[in-house]
Amino acid sequence: MSAGKLIGVGVGPGDPELMTLKALRALGEADVVAYFAKAGNESHSRTIAARHVRADVTELPLLYPVTTEQPKCSNAYRGAIQDFHDAAAARIASYLEGGCTVAVICEGDPLFYGSYMHLHARLAPRFSTEIIAGVTGMSGCWSAAGMPIAQGDDVFTVLPATLPEEELARRLSDADAAVVMKVGRHLPKVRRALACSGRLPRAIYVERATMADAKLIPLSDKPDDDAPYFAVVLVPGWEERP
Amino acid sequence: MSAGKLIGVGVGPGDPELMTLKALRALGEADVVAYFAKAGNESHSRTIAARHVRADVTELPLLYPVTTEQPKCSNAYRGAIQDFHDAAAARIASYLEGGCTVAVICEGDPLFYGSYMHLHARLAPRFSTEIIAGVTGMSGCWSAAGMPIAQGDDVFTVLPATLPEEELARRLSDADAAVVMKVGRHLPKVRRALACSGRLPRAIYVERATMADAKLIPLSDKPDDDAPYFAVVLVPGWEERP
Repeated sequence: MSAGKLIGVGVGPGDPELMTLKALRALGEADVVAYFAKAGNESHSRTIAARHVRADVTELPLLYPVTTEQPKCSNAYRGAIQDFHDAAAARIASYLEGGCTVAVICEGDPLFYGSYMHLHARLAPRFSTEIIAGVTGMSGCWSAAGMPIAQGDDVFTVLPATLPEEELARRLSDADAAVVMKVGRHLPKVRRALACSGRLPRAIYVERATMADAKLIPLSDKPDDDAPYFAVVLVPGWEERP
Repeated sequence: MSAGKLIGVGVGPGDPELMTLKALRALGEADVVAYFAKAGNESHSRTIAARHVRADVTELPLLYPVTTEQPKCSNAYRGAIQDFHDAAAARIASYLEGGCTVAVICEGDPLFYGSYMHLHARLAPRFSTEIIAGVTGMSGCWSAAGMPIAQGDDVFTVLPATLPEEELARRLSDADAAVVMKVGRHLPKVRRALACSGRLPRAIYVERATMADAKLIPLSDKPDDDAPYFAVVLVPGWEERP
């Protein structure tokens, strides 16, 4: 028996209608559908793809260990996550060795800031793989906002909100257009960096962009109270040109 | 009679299967399907969406004027393109005023380096609009290459190959991951900038990523002969981590 195939399937930013035809076909053909989730939480990608997960498919939830007691920069945390990815890859490998097609469904695009790549790096050397690109979360954001983000010769950059304030400000000043990701508790710092770089008046704050309860407002109208981890700030580079 | 609706429809990077369900629905419901093309060329977006353009729909090709005799930085060129966008927006406005739903189909994602935004800027103040996000060309590239591009706290940047060599090198050195777009005749310069920034060994050269005749090779294996305008170079930021 020949080994199976691993497919990283992007399911888009949240709206199930932003799934691609290719993602649907992969879900229709897969023997196993795997997805990451935090223990005790629904898997976002499973929720997005729900109506296309066949009743007869084998589902393989990959549940992240609870690591809240360990700081993210610690060796203990890194070791726990590495062990988890090793174990998840081993579980998938056992299905692939048995000849199964395994679809790993991923929010957004599998190879753009996605957890799937940890499996891909471990399994691609041994098994046949395919990636099905998806609509990214950030495309979902600027589309929901109806905001042209970059054009022509614009330099566009994606910045994690975890960067130090001065570095954020420097990089915001140095780009025409930007997306700041994983805003969460970093919102006050992100706001200061935007103000320092002169980009604050243009900045748009976005939560749950493609969902019914989306929130899209000028950052200047958003207080520094609570922002979810996945909130983003968009800084459009484009202004009307020919 | 109430005015119609303008929809910017992303049709993805080239493979028709990378169209979203939402794009298909928009094409099923539109009264008019509009698309940009160069005079004398097929429209890429029309080719991608071909099987979903209804026989009874009104098609509205928007043909860019031939401007090869004018340098792109000239006022004459800018004026000609601006006039063209004004005229294209006016043609669409006449359908919208008549109550039609007009879908403008766009390669990739409509608001990410797309021509659609020139129409959007002109028409959104007057008419109801909707954007349907699409899979970007760059996602198509790294997915076809099976190459994880960015992870965790990586800084990711998109650079036009038109930038001066020193600025390309500086920006490549300053980012964890990068995509260089519109490579074309700038390939030798892009290669020198990558070498200067130490990123050349990781760089992947990509043409027609999601098409049957795709070309994906290490940039070091690609001679400085001919590169099409839409070729890109990928510089992955990610290396295996937990």
